[in-house]
Amino acid sequence: MTKPAPATYPHRHLLGIEGLTESDIISLLDEADEHIAFNRQVEKKSSALRGRTQINLFFEPSTRTQSSFELAGKRLGADVMNMSVGSSSVKKGETLIDTAVTLNAMRPDVIVVRHNQAGAVHLLARKVDCAVVNAGDGAHEHPTQALLDALTIRRNKGRIAGLTVAICGDILHSRVARSNILLLGTLGARVRLIAPSTLLPAGIDRFGVEIHRDMKEGLDNADIVMMLRLQRERMAGAFIPSTKEYFRYFGLDEEKLSHAKPDALVMHPGPMNRGVEIDTAVADGAQSLIREQVEAGVAVRMAVLEALARNLPNA
Amino acid sequence: MTKPAPATYPHRHLLGIEGLTESDIISLLDEADEHIAFNRQVEKKSSALRGRTQINLFFEPSTRTQSSFELAGKRLGADVMNMSVGSSSVKKGETLIDTAVTLNAMRPDVIVVRHNQAGAVHLLARKVDCAVVNAGDGAHEHPTQALLDALTIRRNKGRIAGLTVAICGDILHSRVARSNILLLGTLGARVRLIAPSTLLPAGIDRFGVEIHRDMKEGLDNADIVMMLRLQRERMAGAFIPSTKEYFRYFGLDEEKLSHAKPDALVMHPGPMNRGVEIDTAVADGAQSLIREQVEAGVAVRMAVLEALARNLPNA
Amino acid sequence: MTKPAPATYPHRHLLGIEGLTESDIISLLDEADEHIAFNRQVEKKSSALRGRTQINLFFEPSTRTQSSFELAGKRLGADVMNMSVGSSSVKKGETLIDTAVTLNAMRPDVIVVRHNQAGAVHLLARKVDCAVVNAGDGAHEHPTQALLDALTIRRNKGRIAGLTVAICGDILHSRVARSNILLLGTLGARVRLIAPSTLLPAGIDRFGVEIHRDMKEGLDNADIVMMLRLQRERMAGAFIPSTKEYFRYFGLDEEKLSHAKPDALVMHPGPMNRGVEIDTAVADGAQSLIREQVEAGVAVRMAVLEALARNLPNA
Repeated sequence: MTKPAPATYPHRHLLGIEGLTESDIISLLDEADEHIAFNRQVEKKSSALRGRTQINLFFEPSTRTQSSFELAGKRLGADVMNMSVGSSSVKKGETLIDTAVTLNAMRPDVIVVRHNQAGAVHLLARKVDCAVVNAGDGAHEHPTQALLDALTIRRNKGRIAGLTVAICGDILHSRVARSNILLLGTLGARVRLIAPSTLLPAGIDRFGVEIHRDMKEGLDNADIVMMLRLQRERMAGAFIPSTKEYFRYFGLDEEKLSHAKPDALVMHPGPMNRGVEIDTAVADGAQSLIREQVEAGVAVRMAVLEALARNLPNA
Repeated sequence: MTKPAPATYPHRHLLGIEGLTESDIISLLDEADEHIAFNRQVEKKSSALRGRTQINLFFEPSTRTQSSFELAGKRLGADVMNMSVGSSSVKKGETLIDTAVTLNAMRPDVIVVRHNQAGAVHLLARKVDCAVVNAGDGAHEHPTQALLDALTIRRNKGRIAGLTVAICGDILHSRVARSNILLLGTLGARVRLIAPSTLLPAGIDRFGVEIHRDMKEGLDNADIVMMLRLQRERMAGAFIPSTKEYFRYFGLDEEKLSHAKPDALVMHPGPMNRGVEIDTAVADGAQSLIREQVEAGVAVRMAVLEALARNLPNA
Repeated sequence: MTKPAPATYPHRHLLGIEGLTESDIISLLDEADEHIAFNRQVEKKSSALRGRTQINLFFEPSTRTQSSFELAGKRLGADVMNMSVGSSSVKKGETLIDTAVTLNAMRPDVIVVRHNQAGAVHLLARKVDCAVVNAGDGAHEHPTQALLDALTIRRNKGRIAGLTVAICGDILHSRVARSNILLLGTLGARVRLIAPSTLLPAGIDRFGVEIHRDMKEGLDNADIVMMLRLQRERMAGAFIPSTKEYFRYFGLDEEKLSHAKPDALVMHPGPMNRGVEIDTAVADGAQSLIREQVEAGVAVRMAVLEALARNLPNA
């Protein structure tokens, strides 16, 4: 049996999961699988992006996402430049678009952007000649997170179609949830959301998801339990739940997890609030995939960067 | 016709435009022209500075200048290290000179320095063995900005000698203006300054420039209109002009621009205050060279880094 | 006479000088000696760590130590990623261990860590698969500083055994002092500590050091005078000495230095408080090794990184 030629990701950018086909997603996951093996080698260095310029433009701080993109680019041989904005030109009153146009004139091949406004990344993508990757825009999308989650699930369960995935917690503020709902739906998983009413966005039911307000009920028979970080920093005063109360009803502990399938697996995009949305025993337990998610993250970002570089004009 | 061998930049450092000859400047512009083409290639990577160490030592934050130097060095194959000072040793009471001497002992080949004090870069250059590039020192000089402006003009007008260049706005706080006045004078352009009296440095007329306080008058028949950023952050309370008032008299809009030559070109070193010193219609209009300036910036910095590396002892 | 094959550093990590044998230390110093010569070449670039990933994880800011490790890794061809924590995930409530486990999942080969808590680096080392280098943990250890000090002494005095080394000043807050006491003792130097009682840690005499409270007495006949930075930022209100008073009794000036041997050499780990613990005339004088220490720092860190990379599984 020969391995089939990989399907090809056909787009110029990766701005969101919205608009991607099953084949687009599968092509990236297949490539990412190979990068997992690559990154486990002693010499983790290719020349796939040699002479290419990657700019990581982060308007919000991030440890893991920026690091993951940085290592991905460097291991592919790109010249990688980090720009944490906030400290410099933004203070001098420069607009997002002026920053984008300026960077574009430096002839990068790809710009990886995180911004606190939904839609900012799409706006930026329209102004530049290079490829753009959305590394998180407000509460909108975080497509590489959904891809790495899918890769992690597929590597552990062998498939995504037909699985029951429960996404639990602060759905309202979560771009991770949104991208995952779209991706898992496209790949044929059944998605359940479990959250208090105050942390569910209006109209979320149009995505064909089941909605639960009770963990026991929502986790019943689930294959995958995806916990979300409680983003208290995005909440206004009166609406911030007490963390003790929150943990009692929505924090994942062993008791609540026991309602899912016995071989259910637990995920979290990090950084975790231990004792708030997840108990330490579960986070570090045998069912946890949290470390594998991080490893998949570097691999997925390598796959995305390579795919986009192939699609650039004249490449 | 064979291409003549390029003139060679003969100095150890690039501390300012002051002291450079026409031939020094031309040699850098000619090299930079080739780097513009280089940076438009898919694989923008040479080994000209392989094994060389470049330190970007920024005592003031900067998005575009630091990025431009970083990409320039990386594309030439140098090991580039960024140091944003302010957060670390300076807090521990270390002097500029101790920082310089420390870095020098790490055997860099070139240090790119930005500092908020005029003269700090010259002081530092006397203490180190490597090449030093001034990336902006107080209100004194910003030589690579003047070089990139000259490159942009030359590429668009075919020459610099004989052109009329109007530099407009906050001359007082502008190292960009100072370096440009020196360079444009050396290359035979006619320089006009247009500014309110409060934003003109004393004694500026000794540089052989025409001085105007009225935009219409100053722009009359100009080939190039260089706008400067209004540096309100450097002004003391009572002397900060209202931005509305400032725009009315000194902001470049289409009406004021109509007094320059019909083929006049507009420049701005960035970051722009749109609606303060420049109108959006002009900034983004057909006469604007602002994006090209940024592209020229990377190319000029590559030319400077290469020239200085060639001049190091034992190179 | 042929050069003997270098002894090999046999450990997975470098967490401290404690536990190292004389042979461990000598093997690193011998390798570092070669890197001094390497770094003086025009092309300072090897491929020893090509395809290796080095993460500099600094929970405390540092100019010289982080820079030194960054250049060391880059000159060896590693992919180097800096993470200054404080600004990002730590703010979001992530623990040290979660940060370590996350980074570990990205498959680095070495993590260089600085942390303000003694013991944090050991804790982290137990959680990761890669090599860990302690770049300073609280008031505990700073092993590469002690190694670079030893290299500097050995290059200037030809040996370490039998020398009298006086370590002076703020011993209490100094991880540099602690690592040096251990290393110099292991290599057979006689160590004297000179400090006011308030800046001496309890129980320090168990390390077999001589203790002096008077500079004249303590410096008598010393070969090496190691000054320490007065770390006022670590002191509580009432116990902060006046700098003038401190300089009078414990600051190294030419008069006090005259009590040491005529060929005594002066060291300081930097950054210096000129006029507090050391006089400018001495810091910049003919007996000062302070610049050489910085140069030795890059070389020592290259030796450490190479040795640890050789010891990784599958390397």
